[in-house]
Amino acid sequence: MSPTPAAARYGDPDARLDVLNDVVRVQLAHRSVRKFGPREVSDAELAALIAAAQSAPTSSNLQPWSVVAVRDPQRRARLAALAADQQFIAEAPLFLVWIADLGRARRLAARAGAAVDAVDYLETTLIGYIDTALAAQNAVVAAASLGLGTVFVGAIRNRPEEVAAELQLPQHTTAAFGLAVGTPDPEERADVKPRLPQEAVLHVEQYDADAADGHIPVYDERLTAYNARFGLRGNWTDRVIARLKGPESMAGRDRLRETLHRLGLPSR
Amino acid sequence: MSPTPAAARYGDPDARLDVLNDVVRVQLAHRSVRKFGPREVSDAELAALIAAAQSAPTSSNLQPWSVVAVRDPQRRARLAALAADQQFIAEAPLFLVWIADLGRARRLAARAGAAVDAVDYLETTLIGYIDTALAAQNAVVAAASLGLGTVFVGAIRNRPEEVAAELQLPQHTTAAFGLAVGTPDPEERADVKPRLPQEAVLHVEQYDADAADGHIPVYDERLTAYNARFGLRGNWTDRVIARLKGPESMAGRDRLRETLHRLGLPSR
Repeated sequence: MSPTPAAARYGDPDARLDVLNDVVRVQLAHRSVRKFGPREVSDAELAALIAAAQSAPTSSNLQPWSVVAVRDPQRRARLAALAADQQFIAEAPLFLVWIADLGRARRLAARAGAAVDAVDYLETTLIGYIDTALAAQNAVVAAASLGLGTVFVGAIRNRPEEVAAELQLPQHTTAAFGLAVGTPDPEERADVKPRLPQEAVLHVEQYDADAADGHIPVYDERLTAYNARFGLRGNWTDRVIARLKGPESMAGRDRLRETLHRLGLPSR
Repeated sequence: MSPTPAAARYGDPDARLDVLNDVVRVQLAHRSVRKFGPREVSDAELAALIAAAQSAPTSSNLQPWSVVAVRDPQRRARLAALAADQQFIAEAPLFLVWIADLGRARRLAARAGAAVDAVDYLETTLIGYIDTALAAQNAVVAAASLGLGTVFVGAIRNRPEEVAAELQLPQHTTAAFGLAVGTPDPEERADVKPRLPQEAVLHVEQYDADAADGHIPVYDERLTAYNARFGLRGNWTDRVIARLKGPESMAGRDRLRETLHRLGLPSR
């Protein structure tokens, strides 16, 4: 018997939700898809994903993002090479590069002869990334509801200047993350990855670190069991430490602050 | 006759989508809700929102976010005072404060006697905000599917240190944004806000600023017409410029970089 959506999400046979509907069910069933079938993503599907993305909230209606839809196989191969050689980028029929875009505001202000100096501050860079993420997540859920699989690619931030050159990005814009999109290959060995117990992330009225962190050991056990199913070793704690060890674990992204400055996002 | 979902979303009677389903329909119908009915958001509903949030993708499964659920009316009033006196924060039955949380990783590394120096870099701060946003947007869509209304509150970043004190946030964490949640008051005068034409944000293969920006004038007209329905003046261009004019238009958030440093997110 399949586990319930909540049991799969938490890797906990006792986990349950008393409120559930078809939309939340689509969300709970999320998994990353890195193997794709040959079917193209149609223009009509792409339009639905982008309309969903544009329907996400955006700070003061600034809409500070753009997206580049890459289908050209050579360009996808070049982007894969720039993003840690992840071959699924070259294999997915559609690769969306989501752009934190403060350039549109800069350009419209220039046309109006006005200043938009707030663009130079870290706060506005953050709005760019946040609003891009809100939009992209709507596209992810829309894709899942249409039977399409996706996976985010943070490695597009490994070499942002070369990505900017490849996509002809103007000043004051940068690739926030990629999203590979396609029909899931049913042969892929992958499943819903368990998350931290809800008690580890949800605080009531005030943050209680001791109470929350007390739920990490059981999660370490659940993730060890999950990883073992795919021949992988290590618990969550070990993997977080390995990932955040230091600049040497960041694939060049320790230089992102300087790179963003050169791209016109000084983030002061 | 009501406009189609796409026509309302774009403020364009001719806009249409050839692919559409119930999930995308929920997304397209998004509007900000700032007036709420008296009904409480139940614990079961809250659990569903958080499970949806946890189901969003997260970079390397880091899960670098937490959320504080605030129902206490006094605390909501104090948070409203810290967030530009927006009264709907005091009036919503539930206010979720979404936390970009690099503290959990710092704490688990400390317990293991390990280093996680990557936490200090802007890249990791961005991962914190991005993953918090992906999660929160899932909660927004889940809420809408359950008949609940929401609105994001970026003004929670106006005075982050006082918010941190109110919520007892530990080091290496910060309030990314708030989210007011409740039953929409049917008396509220508000509607789906038109977004930029899809051609203004979606680029094919490479970014084309001239082609994209050519769609801004018609959007300025559509937003002027939309605003006029609510007694508001000004087109999109004017509003973007006013919002991004300079540090004086940022309600204190021009100091966010220094503040984040003090909160343990140096973003180097």
